[in-house]
Amino acid sequence: MRQSMLLTKTRKEGLKDEVSKNANLLIRAGFINKEMAGVYSYLPLGLRTLNKISNIAREEMNKIGSQELLLTALQDKEPWVKSGRWSDDVYDIWFKTKLKNGTEIGLGSTHEEPLVTLMKNHIRSYKDLPVSAYQIQTKFRNEVRAKAGIMRGREFLMKDMYSFSKDEKEHEIFYEKAKVAYSHIFKRLGIGDRTYFTYALGGTFSKYSHEYQTLAINGEDTIYCCDECMVAINKELIDEIKECPSCKNKKLIERKSVEVGNIFKLGIKYSEPLGLIYIDEKGAKKFVFMGCYGFGPSRTMGTITEILSDEKGLVWPVSVAPFKVHIVEISSENKKVRETSEKLYDIFTKNGVEVLYDDRDARAGEKFNDSDLIGIPLRIVISEKGLEKGEFEIKQRIDGKVFNIKEKELMDFVNKYN
Amino acid sequence: MRQSMLLTKTRKEGLKDEVSKNANLLIRAGFINKEMAGVYSYLPLGLRTLNKISNIAREEMNKIGSQELLLTALQDKEPWVKSGRWSDDVYDIWFKTKLKNGTEIGLGSTHEEPLVTLMKNHIRSYKDLPVSAYQIQTKFRNEVRAKAGIMRGREFLMKDMYSFSKDEKEHEIFYEKAKVAYSHIFKRLGIGDRTYFTYALGGTFSKYSHEYQTLAINGEDTIYCCDECMVAINKELIDEIKECPSCKNKKLIERKSVEVGNIFKLGIKYSEPLGLIYIDEKGAKKFVFMGCYGFGPSRTMGTITEILSDEKGLVWPVSVAPFKVHIVEISSENKKVRETSEKLYDIFTKNGVEVLYDDRDARAGEKFNDSDLIGIPLRIVISEKGLEKGEFEIKQRIDGKVFNIKEKELMDFVNKYN
Repeated sequence: MRQSMLLTKTRKEGLKDEVSKNANLLIRAGFINKEMAGVYSYLPLGLRTLNKISNIAREEMNKIGSQELLLTALQDKEPWVKSGRWSDDVYDIWFKTKLKNGTEIGLGSTHEEPLVTLMKNHIRSYKDLPVSAYQIQTKFRNEVRAKAGIMRGREFLMKDMYSFSKDEKEHEIFYEKAKVAYSHIFKRLGIGDRTYFTYALGGTFSKYSHEYQTLAINGEDTIYCCDECMVAINKELIDEIKECPSCKNKKLIERKSVEVGNIFKLGIKYSEPLGLIYIDEKGAKKFVFMGCYGFGPSRTMGTITEILSDEKGLVWPVSVAPFKVHIVEISSENKKVRETSEKLYDIFTKNGVEVLYDDRDARAGEKFNDSDLIGIPLRIVISEKGLEKGEFEIKQRIDGKVFNIKEKELMDFVNKYN
Repeated sequence: MRQSMLLTKTRKEGLKDEVSKNANLLIRAGFINKEMAGVYSYLPLGLRTLNKISNIAREEMNKIGSQELLLTALQDKEPWVKSGRWSDDVYDIWFKTKLKNGTEIGLGSTHEEPLVTLMKNHIRSYKDLPVSAYQIQTKFRNEVRAKAGIMRGREFLMKDMYSFSKDEKEHEIFYEKAKVAYSHIFKRLGIGDRTYFTYALGGTFSKYSHEYQTLAINGEDTIYCCDECMVAINKELIDEIKECPSCKNKKLIERKSVEVGNIFKLGIKYSEPLGLIYIDEKGAKKFVFMGCYGFGPSRTMGTITEILSDEKGLVWPVSVAPFKVHIVEISSENKKVRETSEKLYDIFTKNGVEVLYDDRDARAGEKFNDSDLIGIPLRIVISEKGLEKGEFEIKQRIDGKVFNIKEKELMDFVNKYN
């Protein structure tokens, strides 16, 4: 896309009332807008990145046979009363509102209750199991404080998957598939090498739950890492588990981290009070055994911002960058510069490479600063001086490395860069 | 996808408490689930159709250069107070709720106020205009009654686009482009031949607004149609406009219809109270001139259901059908039937044709009934008898026409069917 047409502008300064690094950088670069504390809208650049993160999760969920659906934000009180989570004393992050006739309803922060209720229409027999459903949907949490930018919002995007199995054994098979899918997600997001499969406190039906914790200097969690197997133990469990559960390594390294996903066994916690049953092979009625698998696209976008950005601005892995290539045209009044820029923009676009083309009538310094701030992985500068050399200068945003590439090798270089 | 894996089942009967035809059919076919009156979740088949409708709108908005963003549901009170729409006496469809600290907030039913507010950071000069933004986002309307299924919900999906221009003249240029985009949308949705560009009452800044009205026997609107130019006049204006505004035709036919889109001039209605200004060529401050362009994907899905379905169930145009082909295997215990079905499923899938493959162990009658109810455009029955003939029987859902096609001509037939 042509940057002269982009509807956002960058800002030199963040917001005075915004304390989080991720939100301020994303606001400065024109990726998001702050509506109120913990509530951010996504502008064109930000939505491109958010959608890429969501689509990676979507593809991995589809690969393990989970089916996408879309539940509602507005929540009928009844199933939540049955499960015991309607009361604000028990579950204290509700936003509640009322229909015109006075009926109290809530805004969903999670969706076990409505999903279990609707699955009662679709699960009858053991033959219908196992089955799994997920959605990528907006959640609402009435947080007392919301100071972590898009990492802990009052309104945020969530990928929540739920599995339905006949028993724990069948559940475990799907759970293992989900683990593989999750490791693919973080690898594809470019944070696989710093994301640990972490043992954390369990719930009613399992000793442990499992978190995906990404190392971050100013993360709010503390984990104890086994770097041999990328497994960690949450601080809350370190007195109980003193060695790596995989390789028994006792050299665990304490680090700060951010939780970017969590998966756990629900067992019959919701199927029992809500009556989700199936008929087994012998004709007996049994409660469906469930699992829950969470991943936050917006939270992960904030995490990537926090850990990869530098003093100049954002730094995006190719897989989630709003564009792969940033063409920066210097002295656009020069006919050859303009023609070359247009030609490159055209060739890349036709070859399916996503390009932001800075065709603005602006100073070189402003263009470079904006380019650094926006954080597109590859920058190609088109200038009079460069053209004289007969080569293109490509700079990697992540480490500042510069390559001088001949025109005929350009497409190959860009295609191979991942 | 294999129907044996699909997480939904069909139902013989609709819901007792559901009065709308569209919701009952979609519930019976497993496309949606009723959470409460006017609030429906989208199950895998339904979400596929909803996404196809949204994507058609998305593509057409992108083609005219509009940029996608995603605003929030939670609404800060302030800009709505400034525009005069915060009070329930003025704007009576609010859902309101509170932050933990008692601050009152709302759920968005439209987004002029937050968008105009955020655009103040991005529009400075006439050089930044014209520009346009749209989103495909969940809206909330606290309707007193919600009896029209997904055609008028309390929670629903909306494509809302807004244009920003320096003056009315610049606005008109974009408005004409939007008209073309809208006519493309309805054509691609398969309802172009019964959707009328309709003159309706205007607002503060324009004499008329424009609605897209789709003919429907039980539609809630009445329009007067000029069949020469597919233009109509809403009943509310028929005393004022007595002939076709395009061709002056006086033979207007009264018909029932459903509003599936509307576009209108906003002028400076929101930019004035909210202070969205730009600096013009002469250095003077001016208010930005706006337009608004609405289209409801979920409402349109309901409309297509109402007008195309028959006594057997749903009928989808190819462009929005959850799958293009329904392979129905009869007597799957027959080895050749199974092998042929699997082979076809495989070939279609590899060629990018979306197929639902009924591989269930069920009676032929049940499979045919479900197939009619779900409404996939082309049904291919694979049975022992059929295979003996060396031909495949393909039935068009829309008119029941049957074609006998040789295997080598099958792919070509399916690809050409649109």
